Amino acid sequence: MRAAIFRGPRMVEVSERPDPIIEEPTDAIVRVVLSCVCGSDLWYYRGESPHAVGSIGHEFIGVVEEAGAEVSTVARGDLVVAPFIFSDMTCPHCQRGSTISCVRGGNFGDGTIDGGQGEAVRVPLASSTLVPVPSSGHSDETLKSLLTLSDVMSTGHHAAVSAGVQRGDTVAVVGDGAVGLSAVLAAKRLGAERVIALSRNPDRQKLARTFGATDVVEARGEEAHVLVLDMTGGIGVDAALECVGTQQSIETAAAIARPGSTVGIVGVPHGEVPFNQTFFRNIGWRGGPAPARRYIPELLEDVLAGSINPGLVLDFETDLDGTPGAYTAMDERRAIKSLIRVGSL
Amino acid sequence: MRAAIFRGPRMVEVSERPDPIIEEPTDAIVRVVLSCVCGSDLWYYRGESPHAVGSIGHEFIGVVEEAGAEVSTVARGDLVVAPFIFSDMTCPHCQRGSTISCVRGGNFGDGTIDGGQGEAVRVPLASSTLVPVPSSGHSDETLKSLLTLSDVMSTGHHAAVSAGVQRGDTVAVVGDGAVGLSAVLAAKRLGAERVIALSRNPDRQKLARTFGATDVVEARGEEAHVLVLDMTGGIGVDAALECVGTQQSIETAAAIARPGSTVGIVGVPHGEVPFNQTFFRNIGWRGGPAPARRYIPELLEDVLAGSINPGLVLDFETDLDGTPGAYTAMDERRAIKSLIRVGSL
Repeated sequence: MRAAIFRGPRMVEVSERPDPIIEEPTDAIVRVVLSCVCGSDLWYYRGESPHAVGSIGHEFIGVVEEAGAEVSTVARGDLVVAPFIFSDMTCPHCQRGSTISCVRGGNFGDGTIDGGQGEAVRVPLASSTLVPVPSSGHSDETLKSLLTLSDVMSTGHHAAVSAGVQRGDTVAVVGDGAVGLSAVLAAKRLGAERVIALSRNPDRQKLARTFGATDVVEARGEEAHVLVLDMTGGIGVDAALECVGTQQSIETAAAIARPGSTVGIVGVPHGEVPFNQTFFRNIGWRGGPAPARRYIPELLEDVLAGSINPGLVLDFETDLDGTPGAYTAMDERRAIKSLIRVGSL
Repeated sequence: MRAAIFRGPRMVEVSERPDPIIEEPTDAIVRVVLSCVCGSDLWYYRGESPHAVGSIGHEFIGVVEEAGAEVSTVARGDLVVAPFIFSDMTCPHCQRGSTISCVRGGNFGDGTIDGGQGEAVRVPLASSTLVPVPSSGHSDETLKSLLTLSDVMSTGHHAAVSAGVQRGDTVAVVGDGAVGLSAVLAAKRLGAERVIALSRNPDRQKLARTFGATDVVEARGEEAHVLVLDMTGGIGVDAALECVGTQQSIETAAAIARPGSTVGIVGVPHGEVPFNQTFFRNIGWRGGPAPARRYIPELLEDVLAGSINPGLVLDFETDLDGTPGAYTAMDERRAIKSLIRVGSL
């Protein structure tokens, strides 16, 4: 089969790999229909974090081609959403909802197992990992939205859930990347009355408003802090969602969170969380990699019902052979998020 | 009146101060019955943090001597518990439960207002700050327990609440000071099934068990981490309560918390919270100074019902003139917490 292969910083190429086969009776082989590039893929692409040479990508939807003897919940021909990690859903961590810490789990496209940016993927623990999509005849728009449940929309949702967003809340989202925009949508979905999007890019501002942002703040740093505090009567927001991970974005989240609130943080922190300062205002910090497998069923219902359309974050598209261009489009910030059309239904 | 006065590191003396008078119609004058020394009083006592010269102490119960014209909820003769800060309970922060950030609030004994380690205190915002104790004829044991609601027991409770302790949980308490012991009691009260107390002091271990600890771990550092993980089948605890604030205790809490859990942290952090590491296990951090005013009513009910007896942390006692000795007993770790008997009912 053909798949995107990471050869080193700025070297992504599409070439041949062995066709995946069932290795364990709990495996399934999924033929990929749609895949995409994650903001976190850019770290190794840019040489900012290490990554094994090999197959990459951890977001995909596809059709089950073959299911191992012990796979009971999905069958050949099923359209499925794969969360970015596989998990058994029975270990103590999974049972507590922390599927990303599954004791038998692992990440797709980490150098040891197939990535989603290829024609097919061997999915371990397929029964507990894959979420089948009911009915058929889904529009292309729906398929793109289903793809985002693999990671980006689940991650935005995780920011909102971690911060404890409640109906009627005022929420600020720091970051206008695909995760930040998904967090806007997630906050709105959870009933936030006011959603302040911090963005200085007109296209992203527009999408933020489509997703439910009621206000846009273009300022950054101190100026942004003052503005958001002014907008909230000096109180701060009920929930600040940190979707970038830089020192500046972390500090902005810290500054605009109201006392007693919890910052939902899903941007992998490359700066330091100023915990010792926010302690005195009783501000908590929660987040991390999203337990996507836990969130997919409820988000999938809303996608199928048409009440959320997170696929709109995919504003660039190509085919599998165009994968290197999907990376450069995001690297050069010409794309919010790049879709890769791999196969047909 | 006579009151304890801070003159500088290791210089606490009891001398004369002007009798407090009603300055605002919302003030009340409270004649102090019981006061005590807080672990945080030791910071300035030891010269580890700055403090204004003047009246000190922020934990007290007493009897209302005089109430301003606008004070409606307490009256002369009422026995009252004072939380360690005063608050109006109507500002946006108070309404959200974050009374420590009250826009009109402040700390007792901070150099600008009377401390609790004296014969009387002017209490601003008395209606919203003071919690009257129903009925009369309370035992000395009950009065001591009521005193702990001012701060230490409310703080232990805050650790457990911040960590989201649920019925049936396995909880570990890092720290066997008065706050840590109170956190053991609070976790038990919230229904924790297993409470692991980290303590190497036999007297404190004994009190921890009296308060509901089911297990005691004497080890520290790496050794403690391994032990607690072993005791929990390698999973970690559902809630780690950090009640010290040193680098070692913070790291212990981080190491023994199960993925997806929240560390309740009330020890003022003098070390760094390793947020960037715990992020990948979805571990949250919440806490800060306790909103004692919010917690006192429910804890007071349990004290009066005799179902909790947090006053047992007060294992040293003296009178007002003996206040300097109350500090040295704690400084030298001869006392868990020092009671100061100031007046009679």
